[in-house]
Amino acid sequence: MKAEIISVGTEILMGNIVNTNAAYISAGLAGLGISCYYQSVVGDNDKRLVEVFNEAAKRADIVILSGGLGPTEDDLTKETVARAMDKELVLDDKAWKQIQKFFEKRNLKLTDNNKKQAYVPKGAKVMYNKNGTAPGIIMESDTVTAILLPGPPGELIPMWDDQVTPYLREKSGDVFFSETVKICGSGESFVETDLKDLIDAQSNPTIATYAKTGEVHVRVTARAESEKDARKLVKPIVKEIKKRFGSKIFTTDDSVTLEASVMQLLNENRLTLSTAESLTGGMTTGRLINVPGASDVIKMGFITYSNKSKRKYLGVKRSTLEKYGAVSEQCAKEMVKGCAAAAKSDVAISLTGIAGPDGGTDEKPVGLTYIGVSVLGSIKVKKFLFSGEREKIRESAVAAALTLLRQCLLENLTERTFADKQ
Amino acid sequence: MKAEIISVGTEILMGNIVNTNAAYISAGLAGLGISCYYQSVVGDNDKRLVEVFNEAAKRADIVILSGGLGPTEDDLTKETVARAMDKELVLDDKAWKQIQKFFEKRNLKLTDNNKKQAYVPKGAKVMYNKNGTAPGIIMESDTVTAILLPGPPGELIPMWDDQVTPYLREKSGDVFFSETVKICGSGESFVETDLKDLIDAQSNPTIATYAKTGEVHVRVTARAESEKDARKLVKPIVKEIKKRFGSKIFTTDDSVTLEASVMQLLNENRLTLSTAESLTGGMTTGRLINVPGASDVIKMGFITYSNKSKRKYLGVKRSTLEKYGAVSEQCAKEMVKGCAAAAKSDVAISLTGIAGPDGGTDEKPVGLTYIGVSVLGSIKVKKFLFSGEREKIRESAVAAALTLLRQCLLENLTERTFADKQ
Repeated sequence: MKAEIISVGTEILMGNIVNTNAAYISAGLAGLGISCYYQSVVGDNDKRLVEVFNEAAKRADIVILSGGLGPTEDDLTKETVARAMDKELVLDDKAWKQIQKFFEKRNLKLTDNNKKQAYVPKGAKVMYNKNGTAPGIIMESDTVTAILLPGPPGELIPMWDDQVTPYLREKSGDVFFSETVKICGSGESFVETDLKDLIDAQSNPTIATYAKTGEVHVRVTARAESEKDARKLVKPIVKEIKKRFGSKIFTTDDSVTLEASVMQLLNENRLTLSTAESLTGGMTTGRLINVPGASDVIKMGFITYSNKSKRKYLGVKRSTLEKYGAVSEQCAKEMVKGCAAAAKSDVAISLTGIAGPDGGTDEKPVGLTYIGVSVLGSIKVKKFLFSGEREKIRESAVAAALTLLRQCLLENLTERTFADKQ
Repeated sequence: MKAEIISVGTEILMGNIVNTNAAYISAGLAGLGISCYYQSVVGDNDKRLVEVFNEAAKRADIVILSGGLGPTEDDLTKETVARAMDKELVLDDKAWKQIQKFFEKRNLKLTDNNKKQAYVPKGAKVMYNKNGTAPGIIMESDTVTAILLPGPPGELIPMWDDQVTPYLREKSGDVFFSETVKICGSGESFVETDLKDLIDAQSNPTIATYAKTGEVHVRVTARAESEKDARKLVKPIVKEIKKRFGSKIFTTDDSVTLEASVMQLLNENRLTLSTAESLTGGMTTGRLINVPGASDVIKMGFITYSNKSKRKYLGVKRSTLEKYGAVSEQCAKEMVKGCAAAAKSDVAISLTGIAGPDGGTDEKPVGLTYIGVSVLGSIKVKKFLFSGEREKIRESAVAAALTLLRQCLLENLTERTFADKQ
């Protein structure tokens, strides 16, 4: 089965935004074993969109379009594709009710434009949108299936995962089974080198690696007549990958994030956490708190960006700040120690570093970061040097902190289990 | 003049990498006033590349290709396009010498493959590559110009800036100028409705709206013979938009974010800020601290996810938590009051809400959020009801907090200026 992707949006053609949706959809198709030979981008223009859609419909069984489902004048993907496939638009009551509720909830005034979003092609499969107002649409004809998705990634990604993927899996005759091995603390090129023999030998299952800040995801996908057979093909490869990366693997569950795996470790061992963030200014805690149930684990977070607040709330010594500076192993150590003490938590983490663009010196360059972890009183501080711009440095620091925290927990917990065994 | 972009690489079609090159080239073309109506991605496949190139060559005056100039077998962009344009490949001595030098410098062994990169279409303009081995190429025929660029952004970007841009500037007549008006606290459909007459009447300049969580960006773009003339066309439209949205406009500078505009307001008025976050758990402060120079403004951030920490660090009354609960107007008020007092800051914000998926009731549903702002002692608390998944709710809350903070600052500052005038 062949698919093509058409991203609709003048903002992509103007270079205002990077087309991450196409990459996400392509990766998803690859995971489903559906070939994708072409991606196109076209503006919010009826004539050109028809032309590109018809060309794609000639070449592919499935055409996936994203963007142009909004309420505004220049959003015309649905209208254009419906016309190209000779489908009439009718009001979908459920969609219209959802849009009205969406606005009521926010105490926003509904405009005439918004009703436009509730019209769907007659006989189409409607994918209701939990995260926005534009429903997704699946339109089938004898020759081609068109799948229309909203442009904002926050709406497109959940709709793809929850509604399009199951639909495509059923549509493609064979069954596909994927397992994703998520690795932290190793760069993509390292992971690829360590897996080169497996990747070179791949056919079924296929092995693909995806890099994420501080993480590498290895997706193993097999196609077979039944899920049972597909699972059988995936199992030995995943087992081999597990053997090679050991404790660097934080999950093989696609839905589990790095922060969720850390929270689970804390939860299972009934350990509470507190945080002291300087350069990341709350981003680390923000990620951890995104995990449902965080309130049982996280006691307190201190965003101590200034030296004064490091002293007042974490008890960092003035002499330490004067002698070694705020970005130093000593400061990170006192921060994490003071954090655990103030919050009376079992576990604590601290981050201090130079995010730039200014403030770097030869001795302490931009990107220099110290991360401290305290697990039941045993403290570890690790030095990092991240590169990139301010935001990239801070994202890398967050990922490194979660990775170090996880590593320290594992070390400490095995020690404890070992001790228990004595 | 019309251009098209073709990105060559199976890794893009597999979703292994995001196509940032196309965004960079598109932005460059827009800046030069060259229209780009299509972007395409095709794999390292001779047949399909010829097909896509010929289609593009029919539609555009300039076809820009990136990727597939490497030394390996499957790098075939140059060979394919040269054949499509009926050009013979000949060895370019300068390119060959540079490649040899590149390898010597790095003590790398030269392989026969590498000589392949030194062959260029007869009569082509060769763009020598300071950052890699593949030279860029400009091939002209009577009907179309093909510009071939290496795929790695570290090679493509400098080659684009230093060699392609001057070439295209000379080739193209008109110039584009864009200004972006960024609005907070209004939905996209509202903005569209309020601008409908301008949008319906648009031709040159064009007006486009882009939605972002909690923000709408309106981009006004004009084409003219000189930047001066283009600016003249943009100015009255931007002025009219400013008149209609007033203080909801936080910037007309494309590079200024909402958090940066808030930090600037605080900075200019020498006001310090502290934060108390519950449901957002540090995300709000994390965004603010992403602004360079944040350390002069932000005194302290409290991530008080638990009731206990709300009491201990912010002085929220036990009775308040018992009577009204943590997600209440009263709690948000005491949080922001206690936050400003503890941190001794001029300004403070507080967020408390139910991010879900659990914890919602009929009376207090998931998404219910209270945001408090204190500016020099005058406190305002606003109620919100956000929808979507946990992460979406929290992102919406962050945007709403920044918008409310900005609004309260403006109100308060104008009051002060007014008072000064008495």
